[in-house]
Amino acid sequence: MANIIIKNEDYKYVFSPYVEPVARVAPGEEVIIYTEDAFKSRIKTSEDIPSKALAAVKFLNPQTGPVYIEGAAPGDTLKIEIIEIELTRDYAVSCFLKNFGGLTIEGLTGEKVWIWKLVDNKKSLYNEEIKIKIPVRPFFGTFGVAPELEAISTMAPGPFGGNMDVPDIAPGNTVFLPVYNEGALFYIGDCHAAQGEGELGGVACEITAKTTLKFDVIKGKKISWPRIESKDRIMAVGSARPMEDAARIAYAELIAWLVEDYEFTIEGAYQLLTQVGGLYVGNMVDTSYSLVASVHKKYLRRVEI
Amino acid sequence: MANIIIKNEDYKYVFSPYVEPVARVAPGEEVIIYTEDAFKSRIKTSEDIPSKALAAVKFLNPQTGPVYIEGAAPGDTLKIEIIEIELTRDYAVSCFLKNFGGLTIEGLTGEKVWIWKLVDNKKSLYNEEIKIKIPVRPFFGTFGVAPELEAISTMAPGPFGGNMDVPDIAPGNTVFLPVYNEGALFYIGDCHAAQGEGELGGVACEITAKTTLKFDVIKGKKISWPRIESKDRIMAVGSARPMEDAARIAYAELIAWLVEDYEFTIEGAYQLLTQVGGLYVGNMVDTSYSLVASVHKKYLRRVEI
Amino acid sequence: MANIIIKNEDYKYVFSPYVEPVARVAPGEEVIIYTEDAFKSRIKTSEDIPSKALAAVKFLNPQTGPVYIEGAAPGDTLKIEIIEIELTRDYAVSCFLKNFGGLTIEGLTGEKVWIWKLVDNKKSLYNEEIKIKIPVRPFFGTFGVAPELEAISTMAPGPFGGNMDVPDIAPGNTVFLPVYNEGALFYIGDCHAAQGEGELGGVACEITAKTTLKFDVIKGKKISWPRIESKDRIMAVGSARPMEDAARIAYAELIAWLVEDYEFTIEGAYQLLTQVGGLYVGNMVDTSYSLVASVHKKYLRRVEI
Amino acid sequence: MANIIIKNEDYKYVFSPYVEPVARVAPGEEVIIYTEDAFKSRIKTSEDIPSKALAAVKFLNPQTGPVYIEGAAPGDTLKIEIIEIELTRDYAVSCFLKNFGGLTIEGLTGEKVWIWKLVDNKKSLYNEEIKIKIPVRPFFGTFGVAPELEAISTMAPGPFGGNMDVPDIAPGNTVFLPVYNEGALFYIGDCHAAQGEGELGGVACEITAKTTLKFDVIKGKKISWPRIESKDRIMAVGSARPMEDAARIAYAELIAWLVEDYEFTIEGAYQLLTQVGGLYVGNMVDTSYSLVASVHKKYLRRVEI
Repeated sequence: MANIIIKNEDYKYVFSPYVEPVARVAPGEEVIIYTEDAFKSRIKTSEDIPSKALAAVKFLNPQTGPVYIEGAAPGDTLKIEIIEIELTRDYAVSCFLKNFGGLTIEGLTGEKVWIWKLVDNKKSLYNEEIKIKIPVRPFFGTFGVAPELEAISTMAPGPFGGNMDVPDIAPGNTVFLPVYNEGALFYIGDCHAAQGEGELGGVACEITAKTTLKFDVIKGKKISWPRIESKDRIMAVGSARPMEDAARIAYAELIAWLVEDYEFTIEGAYQLLTQVGGLYVGNMVDTSYSLVASVHKKYLRRVEI
Repeated sequence: MANIIIKNEDYKYVFSPYVEPVARVAPGEEVIIYTEDAFKSRIKTSEDIPSKALAAVKFLNPQTGPVYIEGAAPGDTLKIEIIEIELTRDYAVSCFLKNFGGLTIEGLTGEKVWIWKLVDNKKSLYNEEIKIKIPVRPFFGTFGVAPELEAISTMAPGPFGGNMDVPDIAPGNTVFLPVYNEGALFYIGDCHAAQGEGELGGVACEITAKTTLKFDVIKGKKISWPRIESKDRIMAVGSARPMEDAARIAYAELIAWLVEDYEFTIEGAYQLLTQVGGLYVGNMVDTSYSLVASVHKKYLRRVEI
Repeated sequence: MANIIIKNEDYKYVFSPYVEPVARVAPGEEVIIYTEDAFKSRIKTSEDIPSKALAAVKFLNPQTGPVYIEGAAPGDTLKIEIIEIELTRDYAVSCFLKNFGGLTIEGLTGEKVWIWKLVDNKKSLYNEEIKIKIPVRPFFGTFGVAPELEAISTMAPGPFGGNMDVPDIAPGNTVFLPVYNEGALFYIGDCHAAQGEGELGGVACEITAKTTLKFDVIKGKKISWPRIESKDRIMAVGSARPMEDAARIAYAELIAWLVEDYEFTIEGAYQLLTQVGGLYVGNMVDTSYSLVASVHKKYLRRVEI
Repeated sequence: MANIIIKNEDYKYVFSPYVEPVARVAPGEEVIIYTEDAFKSRIKTSEDIPSKALAAVKFLNPQTGPVYIEGAAPGDTLKIEIIEIELTRDYAVSCFLKNFGGLTIEGLTGEKVWIWKLVDNKKSLYNEEIKIKIPVRPFFGTFGVAPELEAISTMAPGPFGGNMDVPDIAPGNTVFLPVYNEGALFYIGDCHAAQGEGELGGVACEITAKTTLKFDVIKGKKISWPRIESKDRIMAVGSARPMEDAARIAYAELIAWLVEDYEFTIEGAYQLLTQVGGLYVGNMVDTSYSLVASVHKKYLRRVEI
């Protein structure tokens, strides 16, 4: 049972250390946070024209936060368990925006809204135009902490997390982020009801949400880039341009993890990941691209033969 | 039962239209082909030093071929079913080479051989140094046809296939390649007993092999980049630098496939793949990087609600 | 004669709208500003070891500012004439830092300090180890305004200017920057006594300086990226990764300039720059790369034949 | 007085070691070579529509060659003095092609032919639509030798030279290329009457030409990438994607040159080029981008102070 509910409508458009926290939470408590969608719910129907609906808008991707986590200090690691994501609307919105998206083929880069209805008791999404049903797999596109000195646009991913658009920021998984400021200053938003790897068109199934998180602080533990743990796998996220640099960052961080916590040498970890590492694209559309390197935990066990 | 056995030791180091075929096969016949490993088996033990073992070698990645497929002509598509891969050695070889691989961290880019023994009745690979056991998942790193006018190094992937290092070129799957020349002129080699996504260190579990393939020709069907079909998914491979261009190519080819064979508009395919597409890295180490875009076939079925 | 002297030692490490101006100046006034070098003068001799000299340092590239320019408001353009740069030390410092620089060849990426003495009445630089004399060509590596909502590291270049490392930010030239905040909030630092195109090793001839500037505000004039005008040429600076995106930005901004001020159509400007545009690399080592597109003014004159 | 005239109309579309030479020349002889333009003169007036004029065309960029240079053998360097370029038409052709060029802004990537007339006794080019006159500065966009085993499209630049589109392949300059085959097998074409750095729109002022060259062979001298010497500067050309890799290659090759011929250590060369190197973009539109790193010869002289 969560004690704290954060439903703050003073949305933020930079991951910033220069604003007051909207809430303070203690490690171990369950916290419920409400989030807006990436367009602040300004796009609602397939008749909407994005450039008009967003005409008065200066910034996209509103974030709830920052949340101050008691005890977190620079040089620590913030651990966040994503306990649950509840979608708080009966439809998700995607769209094609002008001159945006992974492909800019003529005719693809015009404007168009796609409405995906939640069906099957919110277990599936359905689009009437293409008549396709896909499963709901909710996650947070944006999830991060304030950088040390910088204030960075909520359109951007980075070492601090941010707009990674990585589908493994999902219920049941635990995310680890570097702490740069007292209280960590956590931001969250941009829930996606579904999203393919790469977020090809630039806009996933955007939706409002209510999530339950549990924060913890690992004192004195320093990581360089976001890490994720699922039941089966450990993962690291790298964000950069060109995309190969994101891949290098992700794998280098995963090697560091194997060395720190799983008794590998750098060389041994490098060799193992060469043979069994996973590497998928989270986004290929944001200001930096995010890739996820991973390894199944069963390949980390030593076997004597 | 395969009628034709190709065990030609006149290995090739370019995908070339300028050499004589080593065999001619008819569509529909099963064909057995033997392949060398990427180092032509010159590296054998963990005591070997790659730069010495390869000192006299001018070219790497020997290919068997070209195989002439009767009836294939420019503008057709070559369809290849990979029926079986049998590993013909009791160990696979990986190594770190000087100034090669996805990461060039000091101390990682020195030389070192890693021997992975085949164990569990060739179902697993085991390395004694890190004491880790991983599953055998054989596939061909290099798999392609001759380009039209060019002769391209067997280190390179491209529209013609080639050194893609994509783990889905595997038994049970069917590969589609564009045909540029009479007879298609098919080349194969570089079997990997296992490889992670990205082939991080640059060298997978390299091994000799014997494979059974069945070729077919789709007359008058023109594709632009390699396509793969598995039981569950359809996939397209893009190869380019920087990596984001490979991603764009792969998804654009997959959109084309959805439009041609699954009754999608370009826009509908683009939207669907935005929400459920898969995108993983095959290699991040070759002369071009190869990415695989895919979609589960169950998301291609129309549903009325 | 400059009326205002800014010699503020409260150096800044982000281009930020969240701090108080160190001075307020009126358009048209000449202003003298003192700047530190990129290492805050912590490296002084060829015996210094950069990693030790900088061990206690959290941030590099200290900037003087922000300077509030009266009358500047969001949507305006800030015009800065660089009247003079006086070098305030008798030597400049370059160095090789660990894992930094355009090339990371073994043996090049170790640490080493290079001292360049000012000789010939501060007209030349001389290094005793390689015994080479080169001309002093002073310019500011870092030169920018605060972004609208973000606070960005002074290691980074961007639409706001910043750490572009572009040798044309030099005496005699005029720089134009977009204004995002009331007062523009101008920052300056990182003087280079000389620097090649690309700033190959990552560290130019770094030096302290005293400069004379004159600010003006072009009301209601909106530009997207930094522009520079010299006696002969007009130029635009693009900063991005990969480098080709910086090139595209720079040329697109230059096309915009030709359309706005020189009576070209977009098509005509695009064609002209294809035949006579200049495109050099400012830096290939910073968090984004900066390229400069330019055209000689004599090619902008209409001729009847 | 040139003894040999090569006016062969059997144009080539790959840099290939698999075809017969069109001529054999001895080192030291002056040779006159005629070349076609990149479109084989199929585009002639501003009324032409490129996609129609080129509809029947499979390959672009016809080359004259290969020319066999007596005595050249693998591992040597081919030295080519460009003595003169005579333009053999009274107009040059540029155009916008669909989905081609450095910028793909809507409305810029449609089709359009631009005719540049030669005026002022072939010293200038004039376009009637924009009414601008620019100087004739002829050079060869494509200039290379056959690779060792590969046959590469004449649209591509590489270590062998090729379609670099580098304005310093010009009269008065000397070009050095690696030799991979007996006789070197030299190819030339794609003369440009003028071209800006980057060749922004993708098509320069394309023209037919007659050139006078003198070949020489430097026995046993091995270089890795093309080098150019002008009266004042030495230069190296790197070609790759993304663009930063082309920059790294170019500077690394230039460092090698300083070490081999000018008594620098690698470190000293690296430092010097950091402070006085030049780095411009040749092309940002071909299959690989080409950058030119250079240094003025006066900065290579040792000075005692």
